[in-house]
Amino acid sequence: MNQISQNAHVASTAIIHDGVRIEEDVVIHDYVVIYPGTVVKKGTEIFDHCVLGKPPVSPGITSRVLKDNYAPLVVGEHCVLSPGVILYAGTTIGDRNLFGDHCSVREECVIGDRCILSRNVSVNYNTKIGNDTKIMDNSHITGNMIIGDHVFISVLVATTNDNTMGREEYDPDHVYGAKIEDYVTIGAAANILPHVVIGRNAIVGAGAVVTKDVPENKVVMGIPAKVVRDVR
Amino acid sequence: MNQISQNAHVASTAIIHDGVRIEEDVVIHDYVVIYPGTVVKKGTEIFDHCVLGKPPVSPGITSRVLKDNYAPLVVGEHCVLSPGVILYAGTTIGDRNLFGDHCSVREECVIGDRCILSRNVSVNYNTKIGNDTKIMDNSHITGNMIIGDHVFISVLVATTNDNTMGREEYDPDHVYGAKIEDYVTIGAAANILPHVVIGRNAIVGAGAVVTKDVPENKVVMGIPAKVVRDVR
Amino acid sequence: MNQISQNAHVASTAIIHDGVRIEEDVVIHDYVVIYPGTVVKKGTEIFDHCVLGKPPVSPGITSRVLKDNYAPLVVGEHCVLSPGVILYAGTTIGDRNLFGDHCSVREECVIGDRCILSRNVSVNYNTKIGNDTKIMDNSHITGNMIIGDHVFISVLVATTNDNTMGREEYDPDHVYGAKIEDYVTIGAAANILPHVVIGRNAIVGAGAVVTKDVPENKVVMGIPAKVVRDVR
Repeated sequence: MNQISQNAHVASTAIIHDGVRIEEDVVIHDYVVIYPGTVVKKGTEIFDHCVLGKPPVSPGITSRVLKDNYAPLVVGEHCVLSPGVILYAGTTIGDRNLFGDHCSVREECVIGDRCILSRNVSVNYNTKIGNDTKIMDNSHITGNMIIGDHVFISVLVATTNDNTMGREEYDPDHVYGAKIEDYVTIGAAANILPHVVIGRNAIVGAGAVVTKDVPENKVVMGIPAKVVRDVR
Repeated sequence: MNQISQNAHVASTAIIHDGVRIEEDVVIHDYVVIYPGTVVKKGTEIFDHCVLGKPPVSPGITSRVLKDNYAPLVVGEHCVLSPGVILYAGTTIGDRNLFGDHCSVREECVIGDRCILSRNVSVNYNTKIGNDTKIMDNSHITGNMIIGDHVFISVLVATTNDNTMGREEYDPDHVYGAKIEDYVTIGAAANILPHVVIGRNAIVGAGAVVTKDVPENKVVMGIPAKVVRDVR
Repeated sequence: MNQISQNAHVASTAIIHDGVRIEEDVVIHDYVVIYPGTVVKKGTEIFDHCVLGKPPVSPGITSRVLKDNYAPLVVGEHCVLSPGVILYAGTTIGDRNLFGDHCSVREECVIGDRCILSRNVSVNYNTKIGNDTKIMDNSHITGNMIIGDHVFISVLVATTNDNTMGREEYDPDHVYGAKIEDYVTIGAAANILPHVVIGRNAIVGAGAVVTKDVPENKVVMGIPAKVVRDVR
């Protein structure tokens, strides 16, 4: 049985599966599909064709084994989900976040408040994103990655988590993405390799390939990225 | 009240909001959603799950302030919108354009005639694209950018408009993308930084990072991009 | 007339056009659209908003001429199609493949068994992909390309097929992508230029630009990519 607030506006074409909770002043547009158990908190607007709370499903060929059950997706207050957004089960989203068209976030991620994930951004499993962080269009955020507060990641940025590039079995002890500390800025089409730590308030230039740790308050550029100056 | 031509073919599952005008010989496939006031001119075909004329909505966290009202979206004659295309309010599209799957164009853009915007291309706000221009799959076109006629932009090309990368307040006087003149060709995964002018009939090599103006009729390559020869 | 197995589970909101064949134990979720003639083999699960078997349509501006008719799409057994996947007519998909959200494969491709094509991957026309191959998020696979078995292609990888970048008429004799042999690994944001052959078990480093053939069992890195060592 669902709990849908009488003050929510749910399009007649929205498919709300069992056990969903929709709080007051939520607006759900046409052809949205919400999977069982999902929670959508007050004031959030969900545009057409979004899919919320779907569990990950594999035909048995993924190297990382999926769980039998995931906690429900929780979407916080006063978020905006643009058309075609897909958020998976087991993920928790804070308040006042904006998701661009066709953005997709996989299972067991935690996203804070007031973030922007723009169009076609894909975020993989078990990644943590802080508050006030922006990730621009067509970038990919890998699994097992940590991104702090007030981070800016520009368009078409690549991040990865596996130095063996799938040549060995999945092992979470060696498969994890970068740690990006608070107030970091990353330029367009930068390439952030696994395991690096990008220190607080550092700036990564457009097109840089970051192969090792970046000290805080430094600007790095180039391939491979090298320190060129302090952040002014 | 809508004005839908009796010679249009509109699937029964299409959601047509108020004040929409659909001209003759338009074909609208299943689960399309069209927001109020949108105009679709004659002969255009709109495939499944497209969303047309949606205004931009933000939870109050975007640095650029949105308007209270936008002009309606206008889609020209004999266009083809592939499944999942999203076009925003305030944008004007010319005739015989092709939009690939999941392509998205934000508000107040102007696109000419006979352009191709391929799959997963994201175009930001207030950008102008001329006639006969092609933008290939998974590329991003930034806001406040000007692209001429007969331009070819290959796949996974990044463009940006803000040299401060969000570290300062939004100011349209310093936040604008490149100017790409007529007959320019840009190779795969090139990275076009803010404010540069790429001169008529220039060629930018694959993977180049364009940090300063490119003279017309020149080929540039490398990181940063340098002139290597004249266009033959 | 359709042939839908009595043991298939088809959501009432799915649109199944004429002449479609759905085998036993297929699951079709909400708002899926399946075009005429498509075949979905047993045990495959198709999530919300997928579009299957659509023929390519152009407003007459594409340089490559489309056919009047394409063979139906065939999707093999026990595949998983995540939400928003789009597969075109004329394409044949093997068994136990996983397609990520908003992945799109154009007409007349052939994909083997047990492959993963992740989110926002776009595959162009007439491309062949072998068995057990993985293509990660937001990458683009060009038309007229051949990818072998057990290949791994990381995120945001660009591939292209036309050295003239559209400056000459379409000619399939000179417009074809790379040949990527079995067991090749390609790093994040690599850029694979037309016509190159990447030899069996080679490794292409992250961010490399591959401009010429890569010998088998070699590691290449850099811009342009050069051999740095043997694969260990």
